[in-house]
Amino acid sequence: MKLLRFGPLGNEKPGLLDADGAIRDLSGVVGDLSGAVLGDDSLAKLRGIDPATLPVVEGNPRIGACVGQVGKFICIGLNYADHAAESGMALPEEPVIFFKATSSIIGPDDDVEIPRTSVKSDWEVELGVVIGKHTKYVAVEDALDHVAGYCVVNDLSERDFQIHRSGQWVKGKSCDTFGPIGPWLVTRDDVPDPQNLSMYLEVNGHRYQDGSTKTMHFGVATVVSHLSQFMSLQPGDVISTGTPPGVGLGQTPETYLKPGDTMELGIEGLGIQKQNVVAG
Amino acid sequence: MKLLRFGPLGNEKPGLLDADGAIRDLSGVVGDLSGAVLGDDSLAKLRGIDPATLPVVEGNPRIGACVGQVGKFICIGLNYADHAAESGMALPEEPVIFFKATSSIIGPDDDVEIPRTSVKSDWEVELGVVIGKHTKYVAVEDALDHVAGYCVVNDLSERDFQIHRSGQWVKGKSCDTFGPIGPWLVTRDDVPDPQNLSMYLEVNGHRYQDGSTKTMHFGVATVVSHLSQFMSLQPGDVISTGTPPGVGLGQTPETYLKPGDTMELGIEGLGIQKQNVVAG
Repeated sequence: MKLLRFGPLGNEKPGLLDADGAIRDLSGVVGDLSGAVLGDDSLAKLRGIDPATLPVVEGNPRIGACVGQVGKFICIGLNYADHAAESGMALPEEPVIFFKATSSIIGPDDDVEIPRTSVKSDWEVELGVVIGKHTKYVAVEDALDHVAGYCVVNDLSERDFQIHRSGQWVKGKSCDTFGPIGPWLVTRDDVPDPQNLSMYLEVNGHRYQDGSTKTMHFGVATVVSHLSQFMSLQPGDVISTGTPPGVGLGQTPETYLKPGDTMELGIEGLGIQKQNVVAG
Repeated sequence: MKLLRFGPLGNEKPGLLDADGAIRDLSGVVGDLSGAVLGDDSLAKLRGIDPATLPVVEGNPRIGACVGQVGKFICIGLNYADHAAESGMALPEEPVIFFKATSSIIGPDDDVEIPRTSVKSDWEVELGVVIGKHTKYVAVEDALDHVAGYCVVNDLSERDFQIHRSGQWVKGKSCDTFGPIGPWLVTRDDVPDPQNLSMYLEVNGHRYQDGSTKTMHFGVATVVSHLSQFMSLQPGDVISTGTPPGVGLGQTPETYLKPGDTMELGIEGLGIQKQNVVAG
């Protein structure tokens, strides 16, 4: 099942994508697509609805982030060996956790703003994991039961803020518009193997990232279990699981985003994001 | 004006403390004490109410965190020179930012849980700043206009998780119950100088921290302005501004919390927190 949110920023309605690729309006069935409706029972109820009975959404509405009211936006750093190498950092012994501000979240095709004093705004295509139920001290073998589904995330990163502005990466990860999420939340029953999804990111038509979740160092189950040893996870929390090689920081010479650029990124089965880059 | 939230966890009602120290029920006037009611106009409206016209809350209800629906829980690291020294870290050239998970937030007198694998759970009394309006690229001289008020925060920290578990402090800062906030949100008109407030923290009656916001390295206005260059702030965001010396990490030998301990901490004019420490 492909769930999504459509409509103006802050007033998104829930929807689902039918087999023909049309958006069906779910607002008569659930409120927002947020934590409260991401549990197994609630998703099973949505799955039981015949999409043909739901109103078709006409036109081309804006697509919002595929999850509303995100409580935590958690990221895993250096989770692909080749990306750690291109960043000049060692592969960690256990998952590196950092947060992005939830205020950085935007829709998959919204404009990305370069912060005013930015000199090194960079891209990162990542597999996003959306939590479906309360998760605390969960074992690796049970962890995927806590996942509602998956989505595409662009973990935009200002490398100068991240690395050279008095420590802690959050400073370069939390800028407004630095967290496009979506287009779809694809429920986990439709993602048979989250560790075998091809993924890519292009800037101005040039393919910089071309990888697969196959080469993820700590897989989704390990990440969810590990996180839950340090904090509880709530339905609607989003975990972005790290990026494969090919970010701007890893190019020779280093290459960063500038107003006028366009990005396109996608993950197999999870849809495509397209962003225009603008001045902040 | 001293605002607060009272009642069971997750079902807190808004209240205010009258001149006699009694809680008056504000739930007939506003919904939750969260971002939507923290703007200047909204606070002016509350200030215009004669507390004597509000119902008195009888008994001794649980006190919740003084802000609900916190979007971001932002902390400033190493913001007192002596604390940086006791932590063995250099005083930063600009504010160090990190996040705590909003899921760590509890009421001021709720139990603090030691995480299952914790070996170094520590305390930090801090001045909390509650944002009242949308804040982006704000100048230092305008920054305090964006503050709704102030509160006490205990920025509990697991030092082993924070420092030795693959980088990024968030891992030691986000455990459930590691963010007691309150008891009161004291509006900024009642805090004439946020840089001149005495503060203390005691464990089992022994005073470990005894400081003042006077020795804060980057003051509140600088912190708010600085943050707003990297991310927008929303009403209801909470910023914890760093801790003075006297944390457990700085003791000889190092001293950490264990089940059965009690903490008491307070800041001049902002009230007192008391927590029992329990096993997680």
